Amino acid sequence: MASLKECSKQQLVSMKAQLDKQYEDFKARGLKLDMSRGKPGAVQLNLSNGMMDVLKPDGDMRAQDGTDVRNYGLLDGIPEAKQMFADILEMSPDEIIVGGNSSLNMMYDTVQRAMQFGVYGSEKPWNQCGKIKFLCPAPGYDRHFAICELFGIEMITVPMLPDGPDMDMVEQYVNNDPAVKGIWCVPIYSNPDGITYSDQVVRRFANLEPKANDFRIFWDNAYVIHHLFEDHDTLLNLMAECKKTGKEDMVFTFASTSKITFPGAGIAALGASKNNVEYLKKLLAIQTICGDKINQLRHMRFFKDADGVRAHMKKHAEILAPKFQIVLDHLSRELAPLEAATWKEPKGGYFVSVYTLDGCAKRTVQLCKEAGVVLTGAGASYPYGKDPHDANIRLAPTFPPNEELELAMELFCLCVKLASVEKLLAE
Amino acid sequence: MASLKECSKQQLVSMKAQLDKQYEDFKARGLKLDMSRGKPGAVQLNLSNGMMDVLKPDGDMRAQDGTDVRNYGLLDGIPEAKQMFADILEMSPDEIIVGGNSSLNMMYDTVQRAMQFGVYGSEKPWNQCGKIKFLCPAPGYDRHFAICELFGIEMITVPMLPDGPDMDMVEQYVNNDPAVKGIWCVPIYSNPDGITYSDQVVRRFANLEPKANDFRIFWDNAYVIHHLFEDHDTLLNLMAECKKTGKEDMVFTFASTSKITFPGAGIAALGASKNNVEYLKKLLAIQTICGDKINQLRHMRFFKDADGVRAHMKKHAEILAPKFQIVLDHLSRELAPLEAATWKEPKGGYFVSVYTLDGCAKRTVQLCKEAGVVLTGAGASYPYGKDPHDANIRLAPTFPPNEELELAMELFCLCVKLASVEKLLAE
Repeated sequence: MASLKECSKQQLVSMKAQLDKQYEDFKARGLKLDMSRGKPGAVQLNLSNGMMDVLKPDGDMRAQDGTDVRNYGLLDGIPEAKQMFADILEMSPDEIIVGGNSSLNMMYDTVQRAMQFGVYGSEKPWNQCGKIKFLCPAPGYDRHFAICELFGIEMITVPMLPDGPDMDMVEQYVNNDPAVKGIWCVPIYSNPDGITYSDQVVRRFANLEPKANDFRIFWDNAYVIHHLFEDHDTLLNLMAECKKTGKEDMVFTFASTSKITFPGAGIAALGASKNNVEYLKKLLAIQTICGDKINQLRHMRFFKDADGVRAHMKKHAEILAPKFQIVLDHLSRELAPLEAATWKEPKGGYFVSVYTLDGCAKRTVQLCKEAGVVLTGAGASYPYGKDPHDANIRLAPTFPPNEELELAMELFCLCVKLASVEKLLAE
Repeated sequence: MASLKECSKQQLVSMKAQLDKQYEDFKARGLKLDMSRGKPGAVQLNLSNGMMDVLKPDGDMRAQDGTDVRNYGLLDGIPEAKQMFADILEMSPDEIIVGGNSSLNMMYDTVQRAMQFGVYGSEKPWNQCGKIKFLCPAPGYDRHFAICELFGIEMITVPMLPDGPDMDMVEQYVNNDPAVKGIWCVPIYSNPDGITYSDQVVRRFANLEPKANDFRIFWDNAYVIHHLFEDHDTLLNLMAECKKTGKEDMVFTFASTSKITFPGAGIAALGASKNNVEYLKKLLAIQTICGDKINQLRHMRFFKDADGVRAHMKKHAEILAPKFQIVLDHLSRELAPLEAATWKEPKGGYFVSVYTLDGCAKRTVQLCKEAGVVLTGAGASYPYGKDPHDANIRLAPTFPPNEELELAMELFCLCVKLASVEKLLAE
């Protein structure tokens, strides 16, 4: 088959008739599948079931430092959990605050605290700085953007290039506009493109000269060890680079075990310079008494240390790599010949990012929905939900069992084709 | 022995010499005891150890409604946990949001959200209302006051009477001052006095006519089922009373299992009207994805329901009642004859509130500390840490083993006497 764009109107009409029929057949099957969010599948969750009873009623309930984890104490986490996150994030344990069950919540809190109180070194709270702005490399993570939208922080879209955000634009804004207070980054296996920032991009981040002296990089290291293959991407250590440039106060790093153990029941952490950590702990001490140290100890007894976590991630990869392959196979087989879409082939993370012909993403998602497959809303990966090209669709292949994923991808490709043909016919 | 106040100077001098000697003997023993915070003791924690492995690796991990608790979902908690808190708080499940591990954190967040966004029905965020005020029945809970202080909310001290806050004063402020946006209440077994609000006080709360249309009662039901005896206090249901007066949007209720299962590893909840809950859930959805549902299910499998929780509380009472008795025995024996202090005899909660002679609390706490027993800082129970009489000391008898508690109380009574004698001699 040839590229759709080279098809004659007649060819398109006949193609549409055929696709319509296939689509109606699909609809008649009454599917009910969900590929909307980056949720681990049940088989993945089973990998961590051993954690359920790793602590025993009559067992030792003390952390490394002797603290009884069943009682109040240790605002910033048990030492072994701090060490584990420090190892994974390549930071030092005193740069780590272990929080609750959600790194998203820690990010939200970090923004809210900055709004209300400012960050370390702020002249005043961000709430009192007039209109403030965040740079938003896009496509990106919709929940980051939702936080900005809630707080009325103006979002400036920065295009993602193959090796990370457009750093010319980032430098231009950060180094000149005092209203730019932050940037959201998912620096390895970015959500949704699966892009890992190049060493040069990371170095350019460490060399920013922010006009706002309380500018912060929100470095959401969500997929820091979420590789699909032995041959995986590597990310330069931003904190180490920032120490070279004396900019270590510029970074807030986040990570969690949500996609390592259990989403919503894992442990999350924030990594930052000692100045930042000290500042944050003073506020945290008013906010709460401590995180769930029993769950922290449960994690540490199950994994022992960061190496234990890394070994565990290989088991996830064994489950996930075939799922990503199913997605890529369908795309290559069904859409490549027609040139109906392009996509990235990520080496880790949780998504495959597909770009349809301009103006076809919303329609594709709608068609899928009407036939029983829920995808992430088109546009969700862009600030304010507005994809300027209406082209990006985030596929989340992890949750459905493989046979359902096959079916969902069959439908997806069909819908992309149908939306494309409709579009071309309307031109 | 006679009342200290009736002693001659000579008697006081000779008494002081004797007390000084006893105190030096105590110091020589090198004690290291902590009675500063309301922490359960190890024997209490053991009561819930069965929860550690109540979920099994190969067991059923689904909530009542079929939700796999190991994955994302259910922002406001699993249905059975909502039901349990609803039963305990005498509210309906759709008035409950189950949160994370800390009701303090839920209170902080509720204040922070009000500051940033306002509450349901606010004309504008509290941050934009100029100087705002909270009423603070005192003595009260220091962590409530710390939240106000952090946000720059002016605290107005309201005296605690034997049946609750001085409601004349509460009504005077709430019904006339538009800057009064909230009041902190621990309505049953108040921290630290152990006072339970009378039915009349609760009804007067329900009948408030706030000048600020977004005034809120922060009803911290921390000790709602934390009775020491079969013959326990009862608290009128504020929400039910507010429904009669059409004021149900005026209340935020909080509770947790911190002192039922594990401090820092329990589950917490907020109870509020449907309008409030709906409003809060929209903001919460940006803040996080969901609470730790595995821990919620763990609690529910362990307790089954609210009755299970109540049965469990009787085991706590069996451990705690003797501890409170030790405290009261020492006070009666050592301080009553001298009229060196007064105190409350609570039927529940976590504290015994002692009132020394005016001007003796700080000195008593200092003396205890120098001899190795840490108490809650004197003044901590008052806004800005300022006890106008320097008289109130909060004793937290739950954490130390009984033999240590005996020792600590011996020292405490000695220090009260010494501080009193010093004071009287200096007059």
